[in-house]
Order: sequence, then C-alpha cells, then structure tokens
Amino acid sequence: MIKQLRQSNLRIIPLGGLGEVGRNMMLFEYQEKILICDMGFRMPEEDMPGIDYIVPNISYLQGKEKNVLGIVFTHGHYDHIGAIPYLIGKIWRPGLQFFASPLTRGIIIRRQEEFPNLPKLNITEVRDNSRINLGPFTVEFFKMNHNIPDDLGLLIETPVGNIIHTSDFKFDSHPVNDLPTNFQKLEGLGRRRILLLLSDSTGAEEEGHSLSEQTIEKNLEEIFIHSSGRIISATFASLINRIQQIIYLSEKYGRKVCPEGYSMKINVELSKALGYIKAKKGTLISGKEVLNYPDSKITVLCTGAQGEGSAVLMKIAQREHRFIRFKKGDSVILSSSVIPGNERTVQMLKDNILRQGVKVFHYKMMDIHAGGHAQKEELKEMIKIMNPKFFIPIHGQYSMLASHAQIAREAGMPEKNIVVAENGQIINLAPFNISVAREQVPANYVMVDGLGIGDVGEVVLRDRQMLAEDGMFVIVAIVDRKTGKVKGSPDIISRGFVYLRESKELLRETRKKVIEIVNGTSGSGGIVNWSYIKDEIRNKIGQFFYTKTQRRPMILPVVIEV
Amino acid sequence: MIKQLRQSNLRIIPLGGLGEVGRNMMLFEYQEKILICDMGFRMPEEDMPGIDYIVPNISYLQGKEKNVLGIVFTHGHYDHIGAIPYLIGKIWRPGLQFFASPLTRGIIIRRQEEFPNLPKLNITEVRDNSRINLGPFTVEFFKMNHNIPDDLGLLIETPVGNIIHTSDFKFDSHPVNDLPTNFQKLEGLGRRRILLLLSDSTGAEEEGHSLSEQTIEKNLEEIFIHSSGRIISATFASLINRIQQIIYLSEKYGRKVCPEGYSMKINVELSKALGYIKAKKGTLISGKEVLNYPDSKITVLCTGAQGEGSAVLMKIAQREHRFIRFKKGDSVILSSSVIPGNERTVQMLKDNILRQGVKVFHYKMMDIHAGGHAQKEELKEMIKIMNPKFFIPIHGQYSMLASHAQIAREAGMPEKNIVVAENGQIINLAPFNISVAREQVPANYVMVDGLGIGDVGEVVLRDRQMLAEDGMFVIVAIVDRKTGKVKGSPDIISRGFVYLRESKELLRETRKKVIEIVNGTSGSGGIVNWSYIKDEIRNKIGQFFYTKTQRRPMILPVVIEV
Repeated sequence: MIKQLRQSNLRIIPLGGLGEVGRNMMLFEYQEKILICDMGFRMPEEDMPGIDYIVPNISYLQGKEKNVLGIVFTHGHYDHIGAIPYLIGKIWRPGLQFFASPLTRGIIIRRQEEFPNLPKLNITEVRDNSRINLGPFTVEFFKMNHNIPDDLGLLIETPVGNIIHTSDFKFDSHPVNDLPTNFQKLEGLGRRRILLLLSDSTGAEEEGHSLSEQTIEKNLEEIFIHSSGRIISATFASLINRIQQIIYLSEKYGRKVCPEGYSMKINVELSKALGYIKAKKGTLISGKEVLNYPDSKITVLCTGAQGEGSAVLMKIAQREHRFIRFKKGDSVILSSSVIPGNERTVQMLKDNILRQGVKVFHYKMMDIHAGGHAQKEELKEMIKIMNPKFFIPIHGQYSMLASHAQIAREAGMPEKNIVVAENGQIINLAPFNISVAREQVPANYVMVDGLGIGDVGEVVLRDRQMLAEDGMFVIVAIVDRKTGKVKGSPDIISRGFVYLRESKELLRETRKKVIEIVNGTSGSGGIVNWSYIKDEIRNKIGQFFYTKTQRRPMILPVVIEV
Repeated sequence: MIKQLRQSNLRIIPLGGLGEVGRNMMLFEYQEKILICDMGFRMPEEDMPGIDYIVPNISYLQGKEKNVLGIVFTHGHYDHIGAIPYLIGKIWRPGLQFFASPLTRGIIIRRQEEFPNLPKLNITEVRDNSRINLGPFTVEFFKMNHNIPDDLGLLIETPVGNIIHTSDFKFDSHPVNDLPTNFQKLEGLGRRRILLLLSDSTGAEEEGHSLSEQTIEKNLEEIFIHSSGRIISATFASLINRIQQIIYLSEKYGRKVCPEGYSMKINVELSKALGYIKAKKGTLISGKEVLNYPDSKITVLCTGAQGEGSAVLMKIAQREHRFIRFKKGDSVILSSSVIPGNERTVQMLKDNILRQGVKVFHYKMMDIHAGGHAQKEELKEMIKIMNPKFFIPIHGQYSMLASHAQIAREAGMPEKNIVVAENGQIINLAPFNISVAREQVPANYVMVDGLGIGDVGEVVLRDRQMLAEDGMFVIVAIVDRKTGKVKGSPDIISRGFVYLRESKELLRETRKKVIEIVNGTSGSGGIVNWSYIKDEIRNKIGQFFYTKTQRRPMILPVVIEV
C-alpha cells in the first residue's frame, strides 16, 4: 500500500556540494525510471588543501544504473557539466542518451578529449522548442538568457504534472549577440498548468533587476574610447558573451584581439567554429603578431581576473609572461566579480598592476560586469509568469534559497507550497501535494584529488590541516633488543615546525628527553610495550614543544628494535 | 655635504605588513631623533598556515634604541596597538615615554596583563588639545571620529614644518555617544601652514560619504521594533560605538543586555569603567540571568560576525554554547562588514543560523554597519581643510593609496607634491620638497607563531604549504652495515597523502621499490653514498606516486645503518 503510494509520486533529488542546492546535479525519478539534469562540480573550500574539485555523490544511483534513461544539460558552465569525466564511468552503458544545446555539446566533447580513456558520449543536439521523450518524461527545451549562449530551460512533462526548471538565467531585453528574453514564449509555458517551478536562486539576495549587457557594453566602451595604450581584458574563459563584447568593441575601435592562455584560446576557437562568437576576418591575431601593431591597436583577451596563480594576467603582472610586459598607458579590465575567498588575492594582483603604472578597471568602480543571474524583481516575475502550484528554490546557498522562498511568499504563494530543500533530500511530488521524505540519500562531499575520486576522506584532510598548522616532527629511535636502551642519538626530521638551524638547543633537549622516555620505560624489565612508549613520546614531547614554542606539530615516533 | 643635506630633512618611514602602508607603525626621524606613531599588527594571509600575526619589522631601530624619544598611539584598535607585546622588548628602556588617550591607554594596559613578563609601560594620558614635547617634535592631539571612541589625530610640529596625521577617521555629524566632528577646530589646524598631510586611505575607493551612525541606528532600531524573540547581536569586541548603540536600543525597548565571550566582556567592562560605554543600572546581566527573563526582554552581545570558529556566535550556531540555543523567533544581527577572505565562512555561518529558523540581518541587506573610514567626498574635504603643500596617502592597500592620490589630484594638488609610498621606503621631507630615497629599510614580513617572533621564515612556511597540499611520506630503511642490504621491511609513516587502509597495494609496491633502490645502489661495493641513495628514493618514489595518484607528497627517507 505504501509502496503504491510512493510510486505514484515523482521523486526529485538535488545533489552536489553542500550548500549549492541542486546546482551541480538533480535527479527526477518516477516509478524507478530516472532522468538526470546536469553533472557539474564545485570548487573546494579553503579548508580542503590539495583538493581539486568536489563532485556530486551519486551512490544513490548504485544498482540503479539501468534505470537512468538519459542526461540533459542546461548549459556549458563547469558547475553544470564539469563532473562528467569523474562520474560518467559509474553509470555509463551503451545507449545511454545525452542531450545538450550545440555549444554545450561542443564544450563537453572538447573536454572529453582530455580524458581519452573514458567512453565516448553520444550527445543529441537540442535547441529552443526541441522535445524529447524519455520513458515517463517528456522534456521540452526553451531558450534562456545567461552569460553563456545556448542556455536552455526545461519543461518536464511527467505523469504527475508539468515541471519548469529555469536553468541559470536572467531576463535581458538587450543581450549581446543573442536574442532578448522571449516573454511571450515564457507566458505560453506558464499557461500549460505548471505544477512545480524550480528556479535559479543565485541572485535572490540582490535587490532589483540584473544589469543588462547593454549597460555593461556602454561602460566598457568608455574604457575603449579613453585608452591609448593596450587593453588587457581579463575574465573567465567561460563568459562567452563578455568575450564577444570585447571583440566587438575592439573591432569598433580598430583593435586586433589576441586571445592568450590555453582555456581562452580553446573557448574562443570552439565558440567561433560553432557560430557563437562572431569576429571579422583578421580581427583575431596570435601572440606573435602583437608586436606588429602599435599599442593603441591591441586588445589582449586573457584569464586571471580572480588572481589565479597560473593564469595569463598573473604571469604578465609578475613579469613572467613570454612576450607581454606591462607598460605605462596600458589598461587592465577585470571583468568578472570576485569569487568569495579570492578577495585578498585579487587585491594583491590589482596592487601589483597599479605599481607598474597601469590603469585598472574593475567591477566595483563601474558596471563592467553583470552576474548572469536574475535578481529579486526578475525572480518574482518568473514566479508570476509560471504561476506554479508548488515552488522549490534551487541553485544557491541556503541563505539565497531562504530569500527566494520569501520572494515566492511575497508573490502570493502559500507557505505550505514552498519547499526549501537541501542536497540529498527527497522531495515527493504529487498532483495535490509536495513533501520532503524523512529518509535521505547520501550527499556528503566527494573530493577529487589528482586521480583519486572520493578517496580523500576526513582523516586525510584533517591530517593535512594539522600539518599545515604547525608542521610535523619525526623521531626515529633505534633500540637495542638486548638492553632495551636507545642506541646512539635519535634521528629527527622536522618540517614546517621551527627553523632547525636556529633551534639546536631545542633539538638537543628533545633527543635527551626521548632517550629518557625510552630507557626509563623499556629498561624496567619484562615485555616492552612499544605502543605505550610511542604514546609517551608523543605526549611528553608534545607538551615540551608547546611549553617552549606554543606550537603543536604532529609528532610521529618511530621506534626500531635491532 | 650629503650628510648635512640629509640631516636637515625629516625622514618619514612607514612600516608594517606588506600592503597596509603605515597603518601598523610609522617613524618620524629628525637629526637621528625618532618619534614612533602606533605599533599594531596585521592578520596573516591565507597562504600563511599556523601564523598568528604579522608585526612590523623594526630592525631599522636596532642600535638606535636610545634615539627613540617616545611612542604616540592614535587609537585602541589592534592594528594600531596589537604588536606592543611582541616588539616593545626590543626598544624599551626605563624612561621611554608613551602617550595615548584614556580609552586607548586602558586597552593597552589591559592587554599587557596577558604578558606579565614584559616591562610595565608608563603611558601618559593625552586628550583633545593636549600638547607634548619630544625633542625636535611637538605633538598636538585633536579628536577625530572613528568606530571606537577616543581616536586622536596628530599635529606634529617639526623643524621642517607642520605635519597632520589624521589617524583612522571619518566625518560624522551625528555620532553615537560622542561629539560630532569639530570642523571649526580642523579648519583652525588647517590655517597653521600644513607642510604635509598623512591621511587615512581605507575608504578611498568608496564613492560619496560614509554612513552616519545615526542612519545605522535607525536601521538597527527597525529590527528592535519588529523582534519579539531574543536579539543576538554579533560584532567585533573593538567596535565600542556599535556596542553602545545596541545597549542604548536595548534599554529603549526594555531589553536586558548580556555580553558573552571573553573579549566582549572585557571590552564592555573596561569601556564602562572609563565612561566610554554608558548603561543604566541593571541593564547589563550575566549569562546565568538570561533565563530569568522572557525572550522579548533579552539582547545577547557577542563576537563572531566573521564566522570565527571559537567565537560565541559560532558556538551557539553549532549548538555547543553553554546555555544559549537558537530557537524560532530569535533574530541575529551581523553588524560588521566581512573581512576579505572570510566570505565563505560567513556564508556557512549564515546558512547554519537560517536552517535553525532564526532571522539573520546583515550589512548587505540593510545599512546596519558603517565602516568607520572616510570615503571619497570626506577625503577630498580633509585635503581642502588642511590645504597641505605635500600629501602622502597612508593606511591602505596600494589600490586605495592610488585612489586617494587621484582624489588629491582632483582637489588641485600638483602631481609632484603627492607621494605614494610603500612600507620600508624613506620619505625625505624638506620645507620645499619631498622625495623618496633610493635606499630602503627592511620591511619584509615578521611573523608571530606561538612564542616565536620572526622565527618562522620562508622555508618553514613553504614546508607547511607543501605538507597541506598532498601530505607527507616517511620511509625508514634499516640497512645492514656489512652487506649494504635492507634488513626486513622498511617502516612507513604517511599522513595527509592517501588513506592507508585502502592503499595496501601502493604501500607494498613502495616498500619493494625502496628495497630495490637501496640494494641496487649500496650493493655495488665501495663507499656507500647515503645522500645519493636518499635522493634516489625521493625522486623515484616521488615519480611513482605521481604516476599512480597525481599527488606529490613530501617524501622523507631515513636510512639507518646497523
């Protein structure tokens, strides 16, 4: 009876890194058939040293691989597609279907080339108005505006009712190189009895309306009008629309554009080949050609606006770039917001550039960057257009979801029809009610470190944090099996604790103490308890170090009988 | 001849952590006599694990201790006084004079109690209009507004001319529990032929005028009006003025105030004793008394608005506080801006509080915090009031100084009269010119870690960073002196690299390889080159690990002959 009830529900399960609910991946399950939306990763937190990415935990799919009907992708940003190489091997089978817009598809395929051992994906192209059938699900795609072209929202028809998934979006009536938001189309969707709206919450804490790309372009144009030296424009390689703006303005003001850096070159090339970046013949030049033109005719397009150590902009700033050196008269445009956690690095980068007599324009000084996400007024409009029975805010930290829920309330939705969920929670959707199940699916962090996926657990991470704090101290004592006494002087290896050359006295005392501990304990006759001796060394030397230095290095005793 | 020239100049030397020019400490030197202004510290950068603080490098003062005439303090924030316990021992002598306002003095003395072994400082109280003579310098103090009471600007009369040092400041015509900015007084100072203005640049990149505390108070009052549960207000313990506002509003709306946490209790107590915080009898209650009142009558004052792990707010959020647990209806006020680098932690804290059904008010939602620093319009006004011949922007990152220099240009100052300096640079000031000397004084980081001051150098720090990245791997091989072969199986200690229990095969192969390397090299007869063998282990095992895991742990071989 209960099983029957459950099966008539649709289950919606957001997955991904803690906090960013459903952004990286979502599951839709009806009578054991599963539709997946997106498969992206998240960057690690500061307290996860050495970790490359966090990918969604998909252990819920273990044993259910055959039930996965297909995967649809909303757009080509890495937080929506980046985890494919790390996860796809776990659920792939011949015939598994993938759906993406042409640009998204191009980016996924290009990335797959870096992982030659993985299965080749057979990705079907979908566009505005495409309809696909996957068992109980029919997905109709509709164009949305974001800061990358070819972003698709989803209307998912299910036996329970119609669901709208907005993808990341903003409303823009004057986008760059793209069609404006088609409100008529959206209103048409809204008339199709939407049972549930899943809507992007990234901008839900920001008042008003997101900036139009037209405003951004006007401000960028001011910089082009007043710059007589080179313009070095730094942004994310994935912000295809911003890149297009820079190319367009460069053409307007007679500048050649040199894309520099691996990811920037790749993305410009790919987007151009697919028609998503337009540039006149001769506009794009290679690094070698830069010197053939006067400074006033040059724009360099590069990454590094976040102060990434290995990016082109940092190399130029640190005078390590192959052929570009800053000179007076150059202008640097940092056209991206600063990702939380990068503020100090970006400050240092900015300072470093300014010291070289170069002008720096950044988004805090003037509107030269827009975030790509709908803000409060737009979100309210979306709710009104779709007029859903139920609402789940997705794509955001908890505080953004809470704010988005408040927007829904203000738009007139009753409290009980709004669900603020977290990753791993199961939302049961039925035609007349929505609820969160008591049981959860695993949603803890899965960390990627080098070739290892999920093998760095809490123990390893805690050790790294501890090692970083005060370093470590290895003590190797050789003990004579017959006498139970230490032979010679214990070996010591220390890293990250104190500067050894200036700590000779400390080391001398430490050696003495270790000998005392071992000889005092082992020498008492009978069976020697080595693990007790090791604990004694750890505790007593730890205490000694703390008294002397107020630091707590990780102490690792090795006692060897010979 | 050159010496003569130099001696007729005044030397100004900003010191402190990289970037924050002159904030932590400044030297004024005339004919070898030295006046010091402030002695503060800076918090470490993210890439400095385990470091507690960065204090100014004062090696320039080595050998010149007797020339130091005195130290004046502008205000009681730790970036201006915090380094005293770490540096004072290096320059202290009986009779060294210190000058501070009553509150600043109280805070310094209170802090000194935590360092009982240091010399007791004899601090003379100074106030608005106080004048002191120190050799060639006469310092006249004048009241400024900031977010801590008792902030003093300096008019330093020197044989070269008059210098204004603004301290950290903002203009506020409606401050809390403090007198409004006395423009008449400032204009009077401006009429005294100011040769050089040193002015606070912290807000130089912010447009317009800083918010008045009156605006903040109105917004805070809205929260008090609409809250029916407890109000938990988190801010820095050093923001005495904000604390006063919360106490005042609590009294107005019939709430008792419970200061929680060590630094909050200390600061409230000290400021109250000195008359800088006013509270009616019975307003302040202890933690134990909280339960005696209904929720609507309680305000908790605590630290932790930055998401600090050990602060009271975090403890409450994590349900670890001794007696306060969040409940529905509570309101949390985060009344401080987020320090760059803390954004993600604060986001997690906010999410955590919201999940417990508690309302969160923060400075991004409404103006419930003001920065304490003058913004563009105020800075321009200050330059106009003082009408100096020369100008040096101080107290800020390079980009803020550059922006402040631009403000001075716009205020009509000629380019050559503006000096943007960095810590460790020597600015030579004469009645008719200002210049930066070619030589510099040491100004590199001095890091405090536990009891060590300056003993954590680049090597130790780099090791910590490397240990954090991929952990470490110690290999202990016992070698038979006679045969040159490894005895038994090498011991292995690994931390932060891989999870050992799941890496048995990797460890087995590693042991095998180590034995091969040692036996293959040492077994060839003749003198055994142990350092060569160790290098071989490091390189070959490093390579092996990278191929297998794409991680690079620090490899530490120990080879012991028995």
